[in-house]
Amino acid sequence: MISKEMYELGSKRSVIRELFEYGKQQAAIVGKENVFDFSIGNPTVPAPECVKEAMIELLETSKSDEIHGYTSAQGDFEVRKGLADYMNNTYDCQLKADNFYMTCGAAASLCITLKALTASPQDEFIIIAPYFPEYQVFIKNAGAKVVVVPADTKDFQIQMDLLEKSITFHTKGIIVNSPNNPSGVVYSEATLKSLGELLKRKSKEYNKPLYLISDEPYREIVYDNIQIPYVPAYYENTIICYSYSKSLSLPGERIGYILVPDCVENAKNIYTAICGAGRSLGYVCAPSMFQKIVLKCMGKTSDVALYDTNRKMLYDGLSKMGYQCVRPDGAFYLFVKSLEESAVNFSENAKKFNLLVVPADDFGCPGYVRISYCVDPEMIKRSFDAFQKLRDLYR
Amino acid sequence: MISKEMYELGSKRSVIRELFEYGKQQAAIVGKENVFDFSIGNPTVPAPECVKEAMIELLETSKSDEIHGYTSAQGDFEVRKGLADYMNNTYDCQLKADNFYMTCGAAASLCITLKALTASPQDEFIIIAPYFPEYQVFIKNAGAKVVVVPADTKDFQIQMDLLEKSITFHTKGIIVNSPNNPSGVVYSEATLKSLGELLKRKSKEYNKPLYLISDEPYREIVYDNIQIPYVPAYYENTIICYSYSKSLSLPGERIGYILVPDCVENAKNIYTAICGAGRSLGYVCAPSMFQKIVLKCMGKTSDVALYDTNRKMLYDGLSKMGYQCVRPDGAFYLFVKSLEESAVNFSENAKKFNLLVVPADDFGCPGYVRISYCVDPEMIKRSFDAFQKLRDLYR
Repeated sequence: MISKEMYELGSKRSVIRELFEYGKQQAAIVGKENVFDFSIGNPTVPAPECVKEAMIELLETSKSDEIHGYTSAQGDFEVRKGLADYMNNTYDCQLKADNFYMTCGAAASLCITLKALTASPQDEFIIIAPYFPEYQVFIKNAGAKVVVVPADTKDFQIQMDLLEKSITFHTKGIIVNSPNNPSGVVYSEATLKSLGELLKRKSKEYNKPLYLISDEPYREIVYDNIQIPYVPAYYENTIICYSYSKSLSLPGERIGYILVPDCVENAKNIYTAICGAGRSLGYVCAPSMFQKIVLKCMGKTSDVALYDTNRKMLYDGLSKMGYQCVRPDGAFYLFVKSLEESAVNFSENAKKFNLLVVPADDFGCPGYVRISYCVDPEMIKRSFDAFQKLRDLYR
Repeated sequence: MISKEMYELGSKRSVIRELFEYGKQQAAIVGKENVFDFSIGNPTVPAPECVKEAMIELLETSKSDEIHGYTSAQGDFEVRKGLADYMNNTYDCQLKADNFYMTCGAAASLCITLKALTASPQDEFIIIAPYFPEYQVFIKNAGAKVVVVPADTKDFQIQMDLLEKSITFHTKGIIVNSPNNPSGVVYSEATLKSLGELLKRKSKEYNKPLYLISDEPYREIVYDNIQIPYVPAYYENTIICYSYSKSLSLPGERIGYILVPDCVENAKNIYTAICGAGRSLGYVCAPSMFQKIVLKCMGKTSDVALYDTNRKMLYDGLSKMGYQCVRPDGAFYLFVKSLEESAVNFSENAKKFNLLVVPADDFGCPGYVRISYCVDPEMIKRSFDAFQKLRDLYR
């Protein structure tokens, strides 16, 4: 008798993984160039040169234990200080090193934050469809309940009336993700304002803090000069979870942070509970060398222009064919309406043309598919014929 | 209302941390050269050259996404294959890539394994004093109960009669750690044989598997040509938790693995549950570049001879002064009997001479102190006068 829950979680492959594995098998049969795999969100744009330069500089100038030794559990002080300075220069905020807790990436940031906040099995966290499927796993691991607000399929902002109805006395927090995976949509200023007002009003009504968890791995992957604002400016009780996976194309290195600004109610205690939760989950410290690398690369990003080329090519190409595409302002996903009610069937039909697109049912948004465009632009060009054939199938 | 449990865990500094911070303050007052800090187990011997060479080779020969991209959740296949080959060449075993699950270090290995095995809040894990204090935290996080077997203060092996009495129908597993932190002792072959026989007998008696979790971060930090054997050879239901923190002096990089050999009862399902537990705790994959680095450094270690010099100097020096020291065959700790009943008071008295030694109460072994000798040998030489004065205080 081992853990049934963990066994089930381990044996359930995600739809994305299934498609990815299928793509590899199919490539062996029909040739790699004839499979159009839009399933996985693994950044293809290389890490900026500063990553390599920082690594070589560290190897040349620092002692082994300075590079590879344990840092303090909340992260190296100089790194957190540099991060505070960078944020203060970029946004209108006054942060200090001790507002930051370095983590092993976005998933760790979320798991630690949720575990720190959850005080009772009745606690609820609200997620807004379409959402990253692992949110469900992380909330359950923290011992809390998941509440889903259905997607606003008009413009993929937030249906505030439905969110309002979802907030109860048991609500501990709300997770938002903008730029959004899978829709590619960025929340507008109007959305953030309404969200802030609603949460303030409901906190007052229930006489308890409602924590907004802003999951921001795509903060710098934005187009057309859009700027993602500093979310605590709209609502003070905001905890930011960040990862360098996308901005520096380092998804495998597991490096990110949690930011608890002083304006958060109970900030000091939450930070302390975050330290406890990190310890409890087995996170001793964030990888030490990459902590020092992100300090040296502060403010740099991978070349987003390359994703932008893909975005325009795919959005324009598919729109012209008659696909209904959500206009993406950020991240590297195009969210497309399925040509039949079941996006699962639609995705199956797409496979006939070796097109791999992810049905968004697991993202809480049936009837849509996610197309990851962090791919070789040549593959996009070659895929148009297949997208046309798929379109024709439904005429 | 946030998590009280996590808040308490986060606000409770370990004795080791307290001493370490005190040492830094004291150094500012009396000078760094006059403080003898034996508190922390942070390896001082540098990482072997192969680490730097592997890093530079990867940067020169591989594409960014090959180095820094996500690996599969269980770890890069080539890395796990290389690990299996290395183990098969080193020990008498027949392992495959799929017996290994790469992790973010020893703490992650343990947390994931415990979470995968725990099926009910009645499940118990037995730990053997002296033990690494975080075992308590990790077992509680998995939702199981901690059962402690008191230390064998004669020769710091295992009191088999007491272990036998501790095994109940609720026992899920036993954690052992050899070479041991904090005692520095290596379990003898006789101990492993008796342990294997006892666990086989009790498994039969209760008609259920008892899992032995062998925590082996110090496996290669051994002296006098001692070899740490392959523990599953003594007891089949053994899961090995490993970390490269000590063997390659990479504690901050968070890289290790879990090994579930095929001989473990229910091995496939346990491996699947481990995949689920890793996912649930927010471990997406082990840091990708360091996975590839450990592959290139397979079988290499930091220069253990440097620790051996410290070991001999300290053991001989303190023994001559009349301290009762446990003879250490591995790790980099000397375990010394306190000169009064309370090791906490003894450690306080040691501070009068700027000697920082850790009372072992939190390791489940009151009456002893732990001395970490992964330090500059010059500091050891300078410390002898202080150790002598401390000794004289008790005459």
